[in-house]
Amino acid sequence: MTALNRRIVSGMRPTGPLHLGHYFGVLKNWVDLTKDFECFFFVADWHAMTTEYANPQRIKGFVPELVKDWVAAGLDPARCTMFQQSKVPTHAELNMIFSMITPLGWLERCPTYKEQKQQLMEKDLNTYGFLGYPVLMAVDILLYRPGSVPVGQDQLPHLELTREIARRFNHLYGDFFPEPQAQLTEQAKLPGLDGRKMSKSYGNSIYLRESMDEIRPKVMKMLTDENRKRKSDPGDPDICNLFPYHEVMTDKEKQAEIREGCTKATWGCVDCKKLLLESMESFLGPIQTRRAELDKDPDAIWEILRKGDAHAMEESTRTMDEIRGILNFT
Amino acid sequence: MTALNRRIVSGMRPTGPLHLGHYFGVLKNWVDLTKDFECFFFVADWHAMTTEYANPQRIKGFVPELVKDWVAAGLDPARCTMFQQSKVPTHAELNMIFSMITPLGWLERCPTYKEQKQQLMEKDLNTYGFLGYPVLMAVDILLYRPGSVPVGQDQLPHLELTREIARRFNHLYGDFFPEPQAQLTEQAKLPGLDGRKMSKSYGNSIYLRESMDEIRPKVMKMLTDENRKRKSDPGDPDICNLFPYHEVMTDKEKQAEIREGCTKATWGCVDCKKLLLESMESFLGPIQTRRAELDKDPDAIWEILRKGDAHAMEESTRTMDEIRGILNFT
Repeated sequence: MTALNRRIVSGMRPTGPLHLGHYFGVLKNWVDLTKDFECFFFVADWHAMTTEYANPQRIKGFVPELVKDWVAAGLDPARCTMFQQSKVPTHAELNMIFSMITPLGWLERCPTYKEQKQQLMEKDLNTYGFLGYPVLMAVDILLYRPGSVPVGQDQLPHLELTREIARRFNHLYGDFFPEPQAQLTEQAKLPGLDGRKMSKSYGNSIYLRESMDEIRPKVMKMLTDENRKRKSDPGDPDICNLFPYHEVMTDKEKQAEIREGCTKATWGCVDCKKLLLESMESFLGPIQTRRAELDKDPDAIWEILRKGDAHAMEESTRTMDEIRGILNFT
Repeated sequence: MTALNRRIVSGMRPTGPLHLGHYFGVLKNWVDLTKDFECFFFVADWHAMTTEYANPQRIKGFVPELVKDWVAAGLDPARCTMFQQSKVPTHAELNMIFSMITPLGWLERCPTYKEQKQQLMEKDLNTYGFLGYPVLMAVDILLYRPGSVPVGQDQLPHLELTREIARRFNHLYGDFFPEPQAQLTEQAKLPGLDGRKMSKSYGNSIYLRESMDEIRPKVMKMLTDENRKRKSDPGDPDICNLFPYHEVMTDKEKQAEIREGCTKATWGCVDCKKLLLESMESFLGPIQTRRAELDKDPDAIWEILRKGDAHAMEESTRTMDEIRGILNFT
């Protein structure tokens, strides 16, 4: 079976609203990819269950909100397939098959396994399903036989495991799965307001859905160049926590002005923040307008998903039918 | 949710034809159960995959043969539901959910896990799916909310794990699953022809589908009371390997005669074997007549299964719908 080289698959867990870090790290890239690729984007609600199993009832509320964030940010439902993982039963079925052929050691040695377990110490993640997370991820990808998968550097081990499972399947049953290539994306790592990684749990995020009234005080309190104590001290945009925001949201010309004003101390951090607020308003404006439209018709998002589910089911069933044939599970 | 106390669920792996050990150990009891219970019997083809994943293509051939053995042995399709596990997708879906909530330690400590891994040393069973075998077993049972499950002593740890998973679900999400009770059945342990456990891999079995021409030489070579070297030595039916066969297949009156002839040495092992062949012919006759009928219409077995699949899907969907509601995965 040949890879569908113009196809990509990617997913996000529905665990909360998206912030600027998600947008510039992943979502912006997704929007760009829809111009050149046949894209399948999924709401990974089974994956959310691996860590949120104690409160699964919360997950559903995040599903339409996530898709609203996607569409508001520019993902066009006419140009890509958005679906909900748990609504496409081929995922559960192929998960059964991949489980049978995946050596335990591969999962136990997966670097992100121990890491995530440590990060989420407050949750009991010594479960069978959490260990099997990369198996399900391999399912999510291989069901659609994409030529490549957009990944950040930190997700490479997971993709490698997907490729290993594909090879194991091919070794056991004959050549079938093409190995998806990593499509390493230049991800702008936008720092959080306090300089740490932008993360819901640190309370240092700006969300795509936040109003300027909510954002303004956050920005005014943002960490900048810590060495610049007074306005008269020259600052250094290259170590400033705020300047990366300008780099992604402010036009190049203004960026040059800011750089000069900062390094020559003709410009203070407060000025810089006010300018960032302007950039943010321009950036978030269209996103929030689209979101307001979506909010008027709550069914529309579910319709996008149900249509996407059907298309994902159709496409993944092609793969599943062939697999059933290969295994003689017809 | 209350248990369906008149309902039972049980399954067999399709890995080969059934022998007398299966019949007197399990199948005879199944036939009896259909008189008093609403029975769901399933062909556990996913389970077969856990150990047969290297040659899954073989499994399908065993599926109709297994059901033919069932029906030939007296299971009436009008009085019970026979279905094929892999054809009822609710099993894969609930398996996903139970995976999330089942602690790894429960599976690693499962006594049958290590045991079976040792028994099947020639196969590489260090897979994720093999470790998760008891999770899938819990799914198979709990989907149908039976009041009880017919088990042998050796399967008690598995049923206990099913009950633990039910309790864990109820603890996390509120009381839902009734805990199925063990219905311990007096299982006649018919020894193999050589005195060891009757097992395909020992080549010491008599199959339900074997003709008398195939059976005769096997019986004539059967191990009897090893202490009885000559016909003139008195034998002891209670330590004889053959007498248990008479106990399940020969009428009581004749059994008494045999016992007397053996202990008083008026009766030799060859006589005893000839009588056993008669009993076997009477016992297997009706089974093989039914089987010959079934062989004439190969579609009939698949029709029984497809009808059973549909009914199993309908019943298990009731459970699954409620679970989706509880978890808010609607």
